[in-house]
Amino acid sequence: MRAEIIAVGSELLTPLRMDTNSLAITDKLDAIGVEVCIKAVVGDNRADLARMFHHAVNDSDLVILTGGLGPTADDVTREVVAESLGMRLVEDPAILERVRERFTRRGWTMPEINRRQAQVPEGAVALTNRNGTAPGLWIDRPDVMVLLLPGPPRELMPMLEEAIERWLRPRSDAVRLYRRVLKITGRAESHVEEQTQPIYARWAEENPPIVTTILAALGQIELHLNLRSADEARATRRLHDALTSLVEVLGDHVYSTDGRKLEEVVGSLLRERGLRLATAESCTGGLLASRLTDIPGSSDYVDRGVIVYSNQAKVDLLGVPAALIAERGAVSEPVAQAMASGVRERANVEIGVGITGIAGPGGGSDAKPVGTVAIAAAYGERVEVRTFHFMGGREQVKFQATQAALDMVRRLLV
Amino acid sequence: MRAEIIAVGSELLTPLRMDTNSLAITDKLDAIGVEVCIKAVVGDNRADLARMFHHAVNDSDLVILTGGLGPTADDVTREVVAESLGMRLVEDPAILERVRERFTRRGWTMPEINRRQAQVPEGAVALTNRNGTAPGLWIDRPDVMVLLLPGPPRELMPMLEEAIERWLRPRSDAVRLYRRVLKITGRAESHVEEQTQPIYARWAEENPPIVTTILAALGQIELHLNLRSADEARATRRLHDALTSLVEVLGDHVYSTDGRKLEEVVGSLLRERGLRLATAESCTGGLLASRLTDIPGSSDYVDRGVIVYSNQAKVDLLGVPAALIAERGAVSEPVAQAMASGVRERANVEIGVGITGIAGPGGGSDAKPVGTVAIAAAYGERVEVRTFHFMGGREQVKFQATQAALDMVRRLLV
Repeated sequence: MRAEIIAVGSELLTPLRMDTNSLAITDKLDAIGVEVCIKAVVGDNRADLARMFHHAVNDSDLVILTGGLGPTADDVTREVVAESLGMRLVEDPAILERVRERFTRRGWTMPEINRRQAQVPEGAVALTNRNGTAPGLWIDRPDVMVLLLPGPPRELMPMLEEAIERWLRPRSDAVRLYRRVLKITGRAESHVEEQTQPIYARWAEENPPIVTTILAALGQIELHLNLRSADEARATRRLHDALTSLVEVLGDHVYSTDGRKLEEVVGSLLRERGLRLATAESCTGGLLASRLTDIPGSSDYVDRGVIVYSNQAKVDLLGVPAALIAERGAVSEPVAQAMASGVRERANVEIGVGITGIAGPGGGSDAKPVGTVAIAAAYGERVEVRTFHFMGGREQVKFQATQAALDMVRRLLV
Repeated sequence: MRAEIIAVGSELLTPLRMDTNSLAITDKLDAIGVEVCIKAVVGDNRADLARMFHHAVNDSDLVILTGGLGPTADDVTREVVAESLGMRLVEDPAILERVRERFTRRGWTMPEINRRQAQVPEGAVALTNRNGTAPGLWIDRPDVMVLLLPGPPRELMPMLEEAIERWLRPRSDAVRLYRRVLKITGRAESHVEEQTQPIYARWAEENPPIVTTILAALGQIELHLNLRSADEARATRRLHDALTSLVEVLGDHVYSTDGRKLEEVVGSLLRERGLRLATAESCTGGLLASRLTDIPGSSDYVDRGVIVYSNQAKVDLLGVPAALIAERGAVSEPVAQAMASGVRERANVEIGVGITGIAGPGGGSDAKPVGTVAIAAAYGERVEVRTFHFMGGREQVKFQATQAALDMVRRLLV
């Protein structure tokens, strides 16, 4: 099945924005064996959209449009699609009611222009938008299927999944794309490549091949294994064996083989062991606690955190001796240790984490350049401490420091 | 001048890669007033590329293709373009010599397949590639200009700049794109539209028009004003007047007209007034402090923060009375107020912020559903408090709550 994705929105034609929705859509379509052949971005312009849509409909089995379903005059997707397919737009009272209700719930009156979002090409099926006002629209024709989705990812994804389950999976071919992702932290890309390339090179020669890609992101490396196959049982077995042999050489640098993020893995370990954790952050400014508490249910194992930007706060909130800060500097292993132990004891929990460093761009010195971060993890009386030297700007240093801290906690627990 | 960009390469149709070249190209074209109307990504597939190229040539003044100029069989851009324009491919001895020489310099023999890179549509001008083997190609026809560039950014950019200086800038009409961005929080997209549309609609009729786009993101609305003009002084003045009249109707809902983020605006206000701030977060788990400390130099005004996930932590670290929590619930305005005042007094700073809410997915009730967040901001003895009802998942609720909290602080300061 051939698919084409058209993203609508003039902002996506500026140097400031990208169409990232198509990546998530492609991922979902890959999984049911639907091949994305063309992607396009069109501005909020009727003529351009009409031209792209017309050719897409003639050439593909499935056309997915994202964006341009808002209530305003420059939201043209609904009209252009209806006109191009010769369908009349009619107001759907159920949708209108739902849109109105979203406003009412917030104590607002629905502006008249939002009526436009209840317009549906006659014969299209509306998909309920649980996270916004614009419904998705599904048009099923003998020659082509068309799916209209709003631009915001959290509105789009649930409706895409619904459309896949209701209409696309039942019609898709037997050949599917199977993918496994292995996540690693604390290693350089070239080291991972050196260790794993001799192993995965062999799989590329097999039939069907397992295609392996190494992706380096901030603070982590991912190995993606892709296999197109009509035989699910065999594909699953081959990918399982492949993952196993990679984990064998990479050891405990691998933190996830099931897609989970590092903060999820750490959260599961804490929950399983019935442990609670408290954080003491300086340069990361709360990012570690924020990442940990992004995970639903984290209140079960995150007790509290303190952000101690000033030295006085380190003394007041953690009992770090002022003399120690004066003698060794706020960014030092003894201070990180005192922070981790201090927060652990005061919160009366099992695990404490302390992070102190120089996120930059200012504040660096020859002895302690920007990117220097001391991290300590305390588990009962045991305290691990390490000094890292991260590259990149302020936000990059912050993120890498939280990644290293999470990994130190993970290693304490496994 | 209308332009279209086509990126060629099957890897750009996977969930793992994006066509980022088009952003840099758009930026360069914007600067000489050439408007990018459509962007497309096509795999290494002759039929798909031929179709996209054919329509692009018919519709645009300039078509830029990137990628697919390598030596292998799946590099099809040269052939498809030549065939589509009815041009014969001929071998250019000068290019062949240069490609051969690149190999010789490294002590290698040129593989026979690299001969393909010396093929040029008859009449095209070759652009020397200083950083790779594939030359760029410039085709100048009465009705359309076509530029072929290799995919790697460091090969592409110098040749793009050469083409701009040699052929495009002289023909561009001195018209440039000028852009202003106005950022708003605390209002719905449709309300902003209702208030501003009558104003900006007039500008769209003027010559040249100011084109206004409303972009809704999580917790904020952006108004983008774009003006293509040959007269820089006049364009700057018109955009300044336009911004001013939008700010007049939107009032203090506008937090930025110079591209700054909300946390930057709040940071500047604190710095200007010589004030220091401390945060007390429950459901946002440190995200507020993390956003504030993303800004370089924030240690000048962020003193400390506490993340009080457990009730005990609220009592220990902030002195929130346990009886108040028992009586009114942890998520309540009095508790938010006690958190804001508590952290302000204990940190001995001017401003305190308290956030307590239900980020979900669990923990909601009929009286306090998921998304209910009480936020207080204390400035000296004055304490503002509000209860919000945010939509969306856990991370969306967290972000919106920090956005609302930052905005409350901003309003206390202006």
